[in-house]
Amino acid sequence: MMKPELNVFKIGGGIIDNNSDLLEFVRLFSEVSGPKILVHGGGKGASDMMTRLGIAPRMINGRRITDAVTLDIVTMFYAGKTNKQLVAALQSRGVNALGLTGADGNVIQATKRPVRGVDYGFVGDLNEASVNAELIHQFLGIGLTPVFCAINHDGHGQLLNTNADTIAASVAKALSDKYGVVLHFCFEKRGVLTDLSDDNSVIENITFANYGELKESGAIADGMLPKLENAFDALQFGVDKVIIEHALYINEGLKTTLWLN
Amino acid sequence: MMKPELNVFKIGGGIIDNNSDLLEFVRLFSEVSGPKILVHGGGKGASDMMTRLGIAPRMINGRRITDAVTLDIVTMFYAGKTNKQLVAALQSRGVNALGLTGADGNVIQATKRPVRGVDYGFVGDLNEASVNAELIHQFLGIGLTPVFCAINHDGHGQLLNTNADTIAASVAKALSDKYGVVLHFCFEKRGVLTDLSDDNSVIENITFANYGELKESGAIADGMLPKLENAFDALQFGVDKVIIEHALYINEGLKTTLWLN
Repeated sequence: MMKPELNVFKIGGGIIDNNSDLLEFVRLFSEVSGPKILVHGGGKGASDMMTRLGIAPRMINGRRITDAVTLDIVTMFYAGKTNKQLVAALQSRGVNALGLTGADGNVIQATKRPVRGVDYGFVGDLNEASVNAELIHQFLGIGLTPVFCAINHDGHGQLLNTNADTIAASVAKALSDKYGVVLHFCFEKRGVLTDLSDDNSVIENITFANYGELKESGAIADGMLPKLENAFDALQFGVDKVIIEHALYINEGLKTTLWLN
Repeated sequence: MMKPELNVFKIGGGIIDNNSDLLEFVRLFSEVSGPKILVHGGGKGASDMMTRLGIAPRMINGRRITDAVTLDIVTMFYAGKTNKQLVAALQSRGVNALGLTGADGNVIQATKRPVRGVDYGFVGDLNEASVNAELIHQFLGIGLTPVFCAINHDGHGQLLNTNADTIAASVAKALSDKYGVVLHFCFEKRGVLTDLSDDNSVIENITFANYGELKESGAIADGMLPKLENAFDALQFGVDKVIIEHALYINEGLKTTLWLN
């Protein structure tokens, strides 16, 4: 039997920080038919709040350390303000959104990142058993659209911060037994560009074989590589295709589609 | 057919502000058998944060006005920090908690309080159609324990702050078609006291007829009257019984039980 299509969208901080863009994305997302899932990152709000409170972010090797106070503030922003404003906006467009952290329904259980040289603090990593695909399937089955923020838990009462790209890819992989999953990474460009100064230099299709060649030739900008690694990992674990696209053009035109073959 | 029992617990700010008490309540709540729901108020966290940010609360006639910045901060605390820490703690005790605002799944839709002399701001009132009992029933049916915070929405994208006692009573009433509902108002006393200086002066049973007499005689302290009005309203709209009890003694001994007859 043909599996039903499921679209999993990930949006990042860039769009969350611009309210009119966010509402336009919500409108476009409401037009996507069939079962769908949204995963959102955090915006600048949490950092701005920390600055206002006089709390300096702790950085090691350019990466933010999630100490207890940082975790409190990102939980307030991601799971509170951003997630709930987004859910309310989606409801106003007829999308029956259900905001979730991984703790809710134990839907995603993470493991605190082990300390190997650097202690990243309350950061949660995911593995293949982390996502409760059955519960997400039940939510979708009663017409709900799960909206995940980047907060998970460890099952022992501790909340943990997890990269939103990782959450989106893990949810997409876990649901690929039951659905033909299309994973969308949305950002502020129309796709993978060959020339960062030319927004129209989008590579429209990339296969795994292409990807190796493009990487070798240096045609893909460095910042895009982790996203592509994440994308091909998802494809190798059962996701049908991955689309990299502009958050404000999800239903039209130019975009990059990644395929395993 | 006998309706299954459903216990709806409401806890207030007093217990939320004391982490060891809150964890003890979580332990006791995890021992309550059968389907159950938790509704929590906010603690002092939101006010403390406003003070730290130099935002003075706007009060009219002793009541806080929920302006836009206040709404943002209570949303962050109630729906973010408090709700998610509580959900994670419940999960660690084996309760499959699902944290909810009214916007999630459109489970509670409120109406912004009309301006009559005083503009309370982003405060949402509930009516008999506000609660989506069918969705709550579906959540309970798949083994989830809904955990409501005091944030709802208006269906048009606006979040609204609602009194947690009102949410608990409205949820209890809405579920009373399908369940024999016991509504628990938990606070820092063992029940309705005849002598506020004597914690053991608990009136163990109050019927609607009793209540009239007690009110007349002045035997019930003023602060308790709104809670009792709320309770008898719930009983008149189908709730089986209402219990007023100490949050740290929910499974034992002294408490006040309210009955219609």
